[in-house]
Amino acid sequence: MEKLIYVIGIGPGDEANLTGRAIRALQESDVIVGYTVYVDLVKEILPDKEYMTTGMTKEIERCRLCFDLAREGKVVSLVCSGDAGVYGMASPVYELLPEYDDVDIVVVPGITAANSGAAVLGAPLNHDYCVISLSDLMTPWEVIENRIKAAIMGDFAMALYNPSSRKRADYLQKACDIMLAAGAKPDRACGYVENIGREGMQSCVCTLAKLRELSVNMFTTVFVGNSESYIQGNKLITKRGYR
Amino acid sequence: MEKLIYVIGIGPGDEANLTGRAIRALQESDVIVGYTVYVDLVKEILPDKEYMTTGMTKEIERCRLCFDLAREGKVVSLVCSGDAGVYGMASPVYELLPEYDDVDIVVVPGITAANSGAAVLGAPLNHDYCVISLSDLMTPWEVIENRIKAAIMGDFAMALYNPSSRKRADYLQKACDIMLAAGAKPDRACGYVENIGREGMQSCVCTLAKLRELSVNMFTTVFVGNSESYIQGNKLITKRGYR
Repeated sequence: MEKLIYVIGIGPGDEANLTGRAIRALQESDVIVGYTVYVDLVKEILPDKEYMTTGMTKEIERCRLCFDLAREGKVVSLVCSGDAGVYGMASPVYELLPEYDDVDIVVVPGITAANSGAAVLGAPLNHDYCVISLSDLMTPWEVIENRIKAAIMGDFAMALYNPSSRKRADYLQKACDIMLAAGAKPDRACGYVENIGREGMQSCVCTLAKLRELSVNMFTTVFVGNSESYIQGNKLITKRGYR
Repeated sequence: MEKLIYVIGIGPGDEANLTGRAIRALQESDVIVGYTVYVDLVKEILPDKEYMTTGMTKEIERCRLCFDLAREGKVVSLVCSGDAGVYGMASPVYELLPEYDDVDIVVVPGITAANSGAAVLGAPLNHDYCVISLSDLMTPWEVIENRIKAAIMGDFAMALYNPSSRKRADYLQKACDIMLAAGAKPDRACGYVENIGREGMQSCVCTLAKLRELSVNMFTTVFVGNSESYIQGNKLITKRGYR
Protein backbone atom coordinates (compact mmCIF):
# COMPACT_ATOMS: atom_id res chain seq x y z
CA MET A 1 0.00 0.00 0.00
CA GLU A 2 1.39 3.34 -1.05
CA LYS A 3 1.60 5.88 1.76
CA LEU A 4 2.16 9.30 0.31
CA ILE A 5 2.15 12.92 1.44
CA TYR A 6 2.45 15.79 -1.00
CA VAL A 7 3.75 18.94 0.67
CA ILE A 8 2.45 21.61 -1.67
CA GLY A 9 3.22 25.29 -2.06
CA ILE A 10 0.13 26.97 -3.46
CA GLY A 11 1.81 30.28 -4.27
CA PRO A 12 0.56 33.70 -3.25
CA GLY A 13 -3.09 32.79 -3.03
CA ASP A 14 -5.01 32.88 -6.27
CA GLU A 15 -5.61 29.81 -8.41
CA ALA A 16 -3.75 31.32 -11.37
CA ASN A 17 -0.45 31.16 -9.51
CA LEU A 18 -0.64 27.43 -8.79
CA THR A 19 1.46 25.21 -11.02
CA GLY A 20 -0.07 22.40 -13.04
CA ARG A 21 1.88 19.96 -10.89
CA ALA A 22 0.36 21.35 -7.69
CA ILE A 23 -3.16 21.13 -9.13
CA ARG A 24 -2.59 17.55 -10.26
CA ALA A 25 -1.27 16.52 -6.84
CA LEU A 26 -4.31 18.11 -5.15
CA GLN A 27 -6.65 16.35 -7.59
CA GLU A 28 -4.95 13.03 -6.88
CA SER A 29 -5.30 13.46 -3.12
CA ASP A 30 -7.95 11.84 -0.92
CA VAL A 31 -7.63 14.46 1.79
CA ILE A 32 -6.18 17.97 1.91
CA VAL A 33 -4.76 19.26 5.18
CA GLY A 34 -3.66 22.74 6.18
CA TYR A 35 -4.13 25.92 8.10
CA THR A 36 -7.68 27.20 7.65
CA VAL A 37 -6.87 30.19 5.44
CA TYR A 38 -4.92 28.17 2.86
CA VAL A 39 -7.39 25.29 2.87
CA ASP A 40 -10.18 27.76 2.10
CA LEU A 41 -8.26 28.96 -0.96
CA VAL A 42 -7.91 25.39 -2.26
CA LYS A 43 -11.59 24.62 -1.53
CA GLU A 44 -12.58 27.25 -4.05
CA ILE A 45 -10.69 25.29 -6.74
CA LEU A 46 -11.60 21.75 -5.66
CA PRO A 47 -14.79 21.98 -3.61
CA ASP A 48 -15.51 18.23 -3.52
CA LYS A 49 -12.41 17.03 -1.69
CA GLU A 50 -12.16 16.00 1.96
CA TYR A 51 -10.49 18.78 3.99
CA MET A 52 -9.02 18.88 7.49
CA THR A 53 -7.72 22.03 9.16
CA THR A 54 -5.61 22.79 12.23
CA GLY A 55 -4.79 26.12 13.87
CA MET A 56 -1.94 28.37 12.80
CA THR A 57 0.57 27.37 15.48
CA LYS A 58 -0.24 23.65 15.37
CA GLU A 59 2.36 22.72 12.76
CA ILE A 60 3.59 19.53 14.39
CA GLU A 61 0.05 18.25 15.03
CA ARG A 62 -0.73 19.03 11.39
CA CYS A 63 2.26 16.99 10.21
CA ARG A 64 1.34 14.04 12.46
CA LEU A 65 -2.23 14.15 11.20
CA CYS A 66 -0.87 13.86 7.66
CA PHE A 67 1.32 10.89 8.55
CA ASP A 68 -1.60 9.15 10.31
CA LEU A 69 -3.87 9.71 7.31
CA ALA A 70 -1.18 8.44 4.93
CA ARG A 71 -0.87 5.27 7.04
CA GLU A 72 -4.62 4.74 6.63
CA GLY A 73 -3.88 4.50 2.92
CA LYS A 74 -5.03 7.96 1.95
CA VAL A 75 -3.08 10.14 -0.45
CA VAL A 76 -2.59 13.33 1.56
CA SER A 77 -1.82 16.89 0.47
CA LEU A 78 -0.45 19.26 3.07
CA VAL A 79 -0.86 22.78 1.68
CA CYS A 80 1.28 25.82 2.51
CA SER A 81 1.07 29.36 1.20
CA GLY A 82 3.88 30.41 -1.13
CA ASP A 83 6.53 27.72 -1.34
CA ALA A 84 6.41 24.66 0.93
CA GLY A 85 10.17 24.92 1.44
CA VAL A 86 10.40 28.61 2.46
CA TYR A 87 9.40 28.97 6.13
CA GLY A 88 6.99 26.19 5.15
CA MET A 89 6.00 22.70 6.18
CA ALA A 90 8.62 20.78 4.18
CA SER A 91 11.17 20.77 6.99
CA PRO A 92 8.87 19.79 9.90
CA VAL A 93 7.53 16.94 7.76
CA TYR A 94 11.07 15.71 7.07
CA GLU A 95 12.02 16.17 10.72
CA LEU A 96 9.20 13.80 11.73
CA LEU A 97 9.80 11.36 8.89
CA PRO A 98 12.18 9.06 10.86
CA GLU A 99 9.17 8.17 13.07
CA TYR A 100 7.09 7.31 10.00
CA ASP A 101 9.66 5.94 7.61
CA ASP A 102 7.13 3.83 5.71
CA VAL A 103 5.64 7.05 4.28
CA ASP A 104 6.83 8.76 1.10
CA ILE A 105 7.16 12.53 0.91
CA VAL A 106 7.01 14.60 -2.28
CA VAL A 107 7.55 18.35 -2.03
CA VAL A 108 5.78 20.32 -4.78
CA PRO A 109 7.30 23.80 -5.05
CA GLY A 110 5.25 27.00 -5.34
CA ILE A 111 6.02 30.66 -5.84
CA THR A 112 7.18 32.25 -2.60
CA ALA A 113 6.28 35.84 -1.71
CA ALA A 114 9.84 37.04 -2.46
CA ASN A 115 9.32 36.20 -6.12
CA SER A 116 5.60 36.89 -6.50
CA GLY A 117 6.03 40.22 -4.73
CA ALA A 118 9.12 41.01 -6.82
CA ALA A 119 7.08 40.59 -10.00
CA VAL A 120 4.61 43.22 -8.72
CA LEU A 121 7.39 45.68 -7.84
CA GLY A 122 9.24 45.21 -11.14
CA ALA A 123 12.65 43.60 -10.64
CA PRO A 124 13.90 44.15 -7.06
CA LEU A 125 15.65 40.74 -6.78
CA ASN A 126 17.25 40.54 -10.20
CA HIS A 127 20.71 40.01 -8.75
CA ASP A 128 21.96 38.10 -5.67
CA TYR A 129 19.39 38.37 -2.89
CA CYS A 130 18.44 37.06 0.49
CA VAL A 131 15.19 36.24 2.21
CA ILE A 132 14.92 37.04 5.92
CA SER A 133 11.98 36.59 8.28
CA LEU A 134 11.64 39.23 11.01
CA SER A 135 9.58 36.87 13.18
CA ASP A 136 11.39 35.94 16.38
CA LEU A 137 8.88 33.25 17.37
CA MET A 138 11.31 30.48 16.44
CA THR A 139 14.56 32.41 15.94
CA PRO A 140 16.38 34.54 18.53
CA TRP A 141 16.38 38.24 17.61
CA GLU A 142 20.20 38.34 17.73
CA VAL A 143 20.33 35.82 14.87
CA ILE A 144 17.94 37.96 12.83
CA GLU A 145 19.94 41.10 13.64
CA ASN A 146 23.15 39.41 12.56
CA ARG A 147 21.55 38.27 9.29
CA ILE A 148 20.36 41.79 8.46
CA LYS A 149 23.85 43.16 9.12
CA ALA A 150 25.43 40.46 6.96
CA ALA A 151 22.93 41.17 4.18
CA ILE A 152 24.03 44.81 4.10
CA MET A 153 27.72 43.88 4.31
CA GLY A 154 27.27 41.51 1.35
CA ASP A 155 25.24 44.17 -0.52
CA PHE A 156 22.39 41.75 -1.13
CA ALA A 157 18.95 42.82 -2.27
CA MET A 158 16.48 41.57 0.35
CA ALA A 159 12.96 40.31 0.79
CA LEU A 160 11.73 40.61 4.38
CA TYR A 161 8.95 38.28 5.53
CA ASN A 162 6.77 38.82 8.60
CA PRO A 163 7.75 42.49 8.94
CA SER A 164 5.08 43.11 11.55
CA SER A 165 2.50 41.63 13.87
CA ARG A 166 0.45 42.93 16.78
CA LYS A 167 3.21 41.98 19.21
CA ARG A 168 6.03 43.16 16.97
CA ALA A 169 4.84 46.52 15.67
CA ASP A 170 8.32 48.09 15.65
CA TYR A 171 10.37 45.23 14.14
CA LEU A 172 10.57 46.73 10.67
CA GLN A 173 11.81 49.98 12.21
CA LYS A 174 14.43 48.03 14.18
CA ALA A 175 15.47 46.20 11.01
CA CYS A 176 15.86 49.49 9.13
CA ASP A 177 17.95 50.90 11.99
CA ILE A 178 20.26 47.86 11.80
CA MET A 179 20.65 48.41 8.05
CA LEU A 180 21.44 52.11 8.49
CA ALA A 181 23.95 51.35 11.26
CA ALA A 182 25.56 48.72 9.00
CA GLY A 183 26.19 51.36 6.33
CA ALA A 184 23.10 51.39 4.12
CA LYS A 185 22.35 54.93 2.97
CA PRO A 186 19.00 56.49 3.94
CA ASP A 187 18.15 56.85 0.23
CA ARG A 188 18.53 53.10 -0.44
CA ALA A 189 15.69 52.11 -2.81
CA CYS A 190 13.00 50.01 -1.12
CA GLY A 191 9.41 48.91 -1.60
CA TYR A 192 6.68 46.67 -0.30
CA VAL A 193 3.68 44.71 -1.49
CA GLU A 194 0.52 44.01 0.50
CA ASN A 195 -1.84 41.09 -0.15
CA ILE A 196 0.19 39.64 -3.03
CA GLY A 197 -2.08 37.89 -5.54
CA ARG A 198 -5.18 38.60 -3.44
CA GLU A 199 -7.95 41.14 -3.26
CA GLY A 200 -6.60 44.49 -2.11
CA MET A 201 -3.09 43.95 -3.51
CA GLN A 202 -1.10 47.14 -3.52
CA SER A 203 2.56 48.05 -3.82
CA CYS A 204 4.64 51.07 -2.98
CA VAL A 205 8.24 52.20 -3.49
CA CYS A 206 10.14 54.40 -1.06
CA THR A 207 13.56 55.11 0.43
CA LEU A 208 14.96 53.18 3.39
CA ALA A 209 14.53 56.31 5.52
CA LYS A 210 10.84 56.41 4.58
CA LEU A 211 10.43 52.66 5.09
CA ARG A 212 11.67 53.11 8.65
CA GLU A 213 8.72 55.43 9.38
CA LEU A 214 6.05 53.14 7.95
CA SER A 215 3.78 50.77 9.76
CA VAL A 216 3.07 47.84 7.46
CA ASN A 217 0.61 45.05 8.22
CA MET A 218 1.30 41.34 8.58
CA PHE A 219 0.20 40.62 4.99
CA THR A 220 3.12 42.65 3.64
CA THR A 221 6.41 41.58 2.06
CA VAL A 222 9.12 44.24 2.22
CA PHE A 223 11.89 44.65 -0.35
CA VAL A 224 15.22 46.42 0.17
CA GLY A 225 17.38 47.01 -2.87
CA ASN A 226 21.14 46.58 -3.05
CA SER A 227 23.38 49.67 -3.22
CA GLU A 228 22.77 50.01 -6.99
CA SER A 229 19.01 49.43 -7.05
CA TYR A 230 16.86 52.34 -8.11
CA ILE A 231 13.28 53.49 -8.26
CA GLN A 232 11.73 54.10 -11.68
CA GLY A 233 8.16 55.35 -11.52
CA ASN A 234 6.41 52.95 -9.15
CA LYS A 235 8.91 50.14 -9.73
CA LEU A 236 12.02 48.98 -7.83
CA ILE A 237 14.79 47.79 -10.14
CA THR A 238 17.93 45.85 -9.27
CA LYS A 239 20.31 45.53 -12.20
CA ARG A 240 21.48 42.12 -13.42
CA GLY A 241 25.10 43.03 -12.87
CA TYR A 242 27.65 45.71 -12.12
CA ARG A 243 29.21 46.02 -15.54
CA MET B 1 -3.79 50.38 -29.18
CA GLU B 2 -2.53 48.30 -26.28
CA LYS B 3 1.20 47.67 -26.32
CA LEU B 4 2.02 44.89 -23.91
CA ILE B 5 4.99 42.69 -23.01
CA TYR B 6 4.64 39.81 -20.60
CA VAL B 7 7.98 38.87 -19.05
CA ILE B 8 7.35 35.27 -18.05
CA GLY B 9 9.22 32.86 -15.81
CA ILE B 10 8.51 29.34 -17.07
CA GLY B 11 9.98 27.54 -14.07
CA PRO B 12 12.50 24.72 -14.21
CA GLY B 13 11.58 23.43 -17.63
CA ASP B 14 8.66 21.03 -17.74
CA GLU B 15 5.12 22.13 -18.50
CA ALA B 16 3.84 20.91 -15.11
CA ASN B 17 5.83 23.59 -13.30
CA LEU B 18 4.30 26.51 -15.21
CA THR B 19 1.60 28.43 -13.41
CA GLY B 20 -1.86 28.86 -14.86
CA ARG B 21 -1.15 32.55 -15.15
CA ALA B 22 1.98 31.95 -17.24
CA ILE B 23 0.10 29.59 -19.57
CA ARG B 24 -2.74 32.08 -20.02
CA ALA B 25 -0.30 34.90 -20.81
CA LEU B 26 1.45 32.71 -23.40
CA GLN B 27 -1.90 31.75 -24.95
CA GLU B 28 -2.90 35.39 -25.15
CA SER B 29 0.35 36.37 -26.90
CA ASP B 30 0.79 36.93 -30.62
CA VAL B 31 4.52 36.25 -30.52
CA ILE B 32 6.79 34.51 -28.04
CA VAL B 33 10.42 35.65 -27.79
CA GLY B 34 13.35 34.09 -25.96
CA TYR B 35 16.61 32.24 -25.93
CA THR B 36 16.36 29.15 -28.14
CA VAL B 37 16.38 26.54 -25.34
CA TYR B 38 13.45 28.12 -23.45
CA VAL B 39 11.47 28.86 -26.58
CA ASP B 40 11.77 25.19 -27.55
CA LEU B 41 10.25 24.18 -24.21
CA VAL B 42 7.28 26.49 -24.74
CA LYS B 43 6.83 25.28 -28.36
CA GLU B 44 6.08 21.82 -27.04
CA ILE B 45 3.11 23.26 -25.12
CA LEU B 46 1.87 25.79 -27.69
CA PRO B 47 3.14 24.62 -31.10
CA ASP B 48 1.00 27.01 -33.17
CA LYS B 49 2.33 30.34 -31.90
CA GLU B 50 4.76 32.65 -33.67
CA TYR B 51 8.23 32.34 -32.12
CA MET B 52 11.37 34.45 -32.38
CA THR B 53 14.71 33.53 -30.86
CA THR B 54 17.98 35.34 -30.16
CA GLY B 55 21.30 34.01 -28.90
CA MET B 56 22.16 33.53 -25.24
CA THR B 57 24.21 36.71 -24.75
CA LYS B 58 21.90 38.93 -26.82
CA GLU B 59 19.68 40.04 -23.92
CA ILE B 60 19.43 43.71 -24.87
CA GLU B 61 18.65 42.91 -28.51
CA ARG B 62 16.00 40.49 -27.27
CA CYS B 63 14.39 43.20 -25.14
CA ARG B 64 14.44 45.72 -27.99
CA LEU B 65 12.88 43.14 -30.31
CA CYS B 66 10.05 42.75 -27.80
CA PHE B 67 9.47 46.50 -27.55
CA ASP B 68 9.47 46.82 -31.35
CA LEU B 69 6.96 43.98 -31.71
CA ALA B 70 4.75 45.50 -28.99
CA ARG B 71 4.77 48.79 -30.87
CA GLU B 72 3.53 46.93 -33.95
CA GLY B 73 0.49 46.08 -31.84
CA LYS B 74 1.44 42.51 -31.01
CA VAL B 75 1.02 41.07 -27.53
CA VAL B 76 4.53 39.79 -26.76
CA SER B 77 5.74 37.20 -24.27
CA LEU B 78 9.41 37.23 -23.37
CA VAL B 79 10.18 33.89 -21.73
CA CYS B 80 12.90 33.16 -19.17
CA SER B 81 13.78 29.93 -17.39
CA GLY B 82 12.95 29.83 -13.68
CA ASP B 83 11.69 33.20 -12.50
CA ALA B 84 11.81 36.26 -14.77
CA GLY B 85 13.01 38.36 -11.82
CA VAL B 86 15.92 36.18 -10.64
CA TYR B 87 18.94 36.80 -12.90
CA GLY B 88 16.18 37.10 -15.51
CA MET B 89 14.91 39.51 -18.14
CA ALA B 90 12.65 41.59 -15.88
CA SER B 91 15.36 44.11 -15.02
CA PRO B 92 16.81 44.70 -18.53
CA VAL B 93 13.24 45.20 -19.80
CA TYR B 94 12.58 47.81 -17.11
CA GLU B 95 15.97 49.42 -17.74
CA LEU B 96 14.99 49.99 -21.38
CA LEU B 97 11.40 51.01 -20.62
CA PRO B 98 12.14 54.78 -20.44
CA GLU B 99 12.95 54.62 -24.18
CA TYR B 100 9.62 52.90 -24.88
CA ASP B 101 7.33 54.39 -22.28
CA ASP B 102 4.20 53.81 -24.33
CA VAL B 103 4.57 50.05 -23.69
CA ASP B 104 3.14 48.22 -20.66
CA ILE B 105 5.14 45.56 -18.85
CA VAL B 106 3.68 42.71 -16.80
CA VAL B 107 6.08 40.35 -15.01
CA VAL B 108 4.65 36.86 -14.49
CA PRO B 109 6.64 35.05 -11.80
CA GLY B 110 7.84 31.46 -12.09
CA ILE B 111 9.60 29.00 -9.82
CA THR B 112 13.31 29.75 -9.67
CA ALA B 113 15.90 26.96 -9.37
CA ALA B 114 16.53 27.77 -5.70
CA ASN B 115 13.00 26.68 -4.86
CA SER B 116 12.46 23.96 -7.46
CA GLY B 117 15.84 22.43 -6.56
CA ALA B 118 15.10 22.76 -2.85
CA ALA B 119 11.92 20.69 -3.31
CA VAL B 120 14.02 17.90 -4.83
CA LEU B 121 16.57 17.97 -2.00
CA GLY B 122 13.93 18.07 0.76
CA ALA B 123 14.00 21.35 2.66
CA PRO B 124 17.41 23.04 2.36
CA LEU B 125 16.02 26.61 2.33
CA ASN B 126 13.38 26.33 5.04
CA HIS B 127 14.86 29.23 7.01
CA ASP B 128 16.50 32.52 5.97
CA TYR B 129 18.49 31.96 2.78
CA CYS B 130 20.35 33.71 0.05
CA VAL B 131 20.77 33.18 -3.65
CA ILE B 132 24.19 33.88 -5.18
CA SER B 133 25.38 33.49 -8.76
CA LEU B 134 29.01 32.43 -9.19
CA SER B 135 29.11 33.86 -12.71
CA ASP B 136 31.52 36.80 -12.99
CA LEU B 137 30.40 37.74 -16.50
CA MET B 138 28.49 40.78 -15.20
CA THR B 139 29.70 40.98 -11.59
CA PRO B 140 33.30 41.43 -10.39
CA TRP B 141 34.59 38.36 -8.57
CA GLU B 142 35.38 40.49 -5.47
CA VAL B 143 31.68 41.28 -5.12
CA ILE B 144 30.82 37.59 -5.33
CA GLU B 145 33.56 36.71 -2.84
CA ASN B 146 32.26 39.34 -0.43
CA ARG B 147 28.71 37.99 -0.74
CA ILE B 148 29.78 34.43 0.00
CA LYS B 149 31.68 35.63 3.10
CA ALA B 150 28.66 37.65 4.26
CA ALA B 151 26.37 34.65 3.71
CA ILE B 152 28.53 32.56 6.04
CA MET B 153 28.79 35.38 8.59
CA GLY B 154 25.00 35.71 8.60
CA ASP B 155 24.63 31.91 8.78
CA PHE B 156 22.30 31.85 5.78
CA ALA B 157 21.41 28.71 3.89
CA MET B 158 22.43 29.26 0.27
CA ALA B 159 21.51 28.39 -3.27
CA LEU B 160 24.39 28.89 -5.71
CA TYR B 161 23.57 29.49 -9.38
CA ASN B 162 26.01 29.08 -12.27
CA PRO B 163 28.50 27.07 -10.20
CA SER B 164 30.53 26.14 -13.25
CA SER B 165 31.15 26.68 -16.92
CA ARG B 166 33.89 25.72 -19.33
CA LYS B 167 35.84 28.89 -18.52
CA ARG B 168 35.16 28.74 -14.78
CA ALA B 169 35.74 25.10 -13.88
CA ASP B 170 37.16 25.89 -10.44
CA TYR B 171 34.68 28.54 -9.23
CA LEU B 172 32.72 26.19 -6.98
CA GLN B 173 36.00 25.12 -5.36
CA LYS B 174 36.95 28.76 -4.85
CA ALA B 175 33.52 29.47 -3.34
CA CYS B 176 33.90 26.54 -0.92
CA ASP B 177 37.35 27.79 0.08
CA ILE B 178 35.88 31.22 0.86
CA MET B 179 33.20 29.59 3.02
CA LEU B 180 35.74 27.48 4.89
CA ALA B 181 37.99 30.51 5.45
CA ALA B 182 34.96 32.46 6.73
CA GLY B 183 34.36 29.83 9.40
CA ALA B 184 32.04 27.23 7.85
CA LYS B 185 32.98 23.76 9.13
CA PRO B 186 34.08 21.15 6.58
CA ASP B 187 31.13 18.95 7.63
CA ARG B 188 28.55 21.65 6.78
CA ALA B 189 25.61 19.87 5.11
CA CYS B 190 25.36 20.57 1.36
CA GLY B 191 23.77 19.18 -1.77
CA TYR B 192 23.14 19.80 -5.42
CA VAL B 193 20.58 19.10 -8.12
CA GLU B 194 21.29 18.61 -11.82
CA ASN B 195 18.74 19.18 -14.61
CA ILE B 196 15.93 20.26 -12.30
CA GLY B 197 12.55 19.30 -13.72
CA ARG B 198 14.13 17.86 -16.86
CA GLU B 199 15.25 14.52 -18.22
CA GLY B 200 18.28 13.27 -16.30
CA MET B 201 17.41 15.07 -13.06
CA GLN B 202 19.51 13.86 -10.18
CA SER B 203 20.35 15.11 -6.74
CA CYS B 204 23.08 14.39 -4.22
CA VAL B 205 23.87 15.38 -0.63
CA CYS B 206 27.39 15.79 0.73
CA THR B 207 29.57 17.75 3.15
CA LEU B 208 31.12 21.10 2.26
CA ALA B 209 34.54 19.38 2.20
CA LYS B 210 33.22 16.89 -0.35
CA LEU B 211 31.48 19.61 -2.36
CA ARG B 212 34.84 21.34 -2.73
CA GLU B 213 36.23 18.28 -4.54
CA LEU B 214 33.35 17.92 -6.99
CA SER B 215 33.12 19.08 -10.54
CA VAL B 216 29.51 19.95 -11.27
CA ASN B 217 28.18 20.92 -14.67
CA MET B 218 26.50 24.16 -15.72
CA PHE B 219 23.01 22.67 -15.34
CA THR B 220 23.51 22.31 -11.60
CA THR B 221 22.18 24.30 -8.66
CA VAL B 222 24.24 23.93 -5.49
CA PHE B 223 22.82 24.18 -1.96
CA VAL B 224 24.78 24.94 1.20
CA GLY B 225 22.98 24.52 4.52
CA ASN B 226 23.22 26.87 7.48
CA SER B 227 25.19 25.77 10.57
CA GLU B 228 22.21 23.72 11.84
CA SER B 229 21.22 22.04 8.59
CA TYR B 230 21.60 18.29 8.42
CA ILE B 231 21.54 15.38 6.03
CA GLN B 232 18.83 12.74 6.48
CA GLY B 233 19.09 9.89 3.99
CA ASN B 234 19.38 11.59 0.62
CA LYS B 235 17.76 14.84 1.80
CA LEU B 236 19.18 18.15 3.05
CA ILE B 237 17.09 19.67 5.84
CA THR B 238 17.23 23.18 7.26
CA LYS B 239 15.04 23.60 10.33
CA ARG B 240 12.34 26.27 10.49
CA GLY B 241 13.92 27.84 13.57
CA TYR B 242 16.46 27.57 16.32
CA ARG B 243 14.08 26.87 19.20
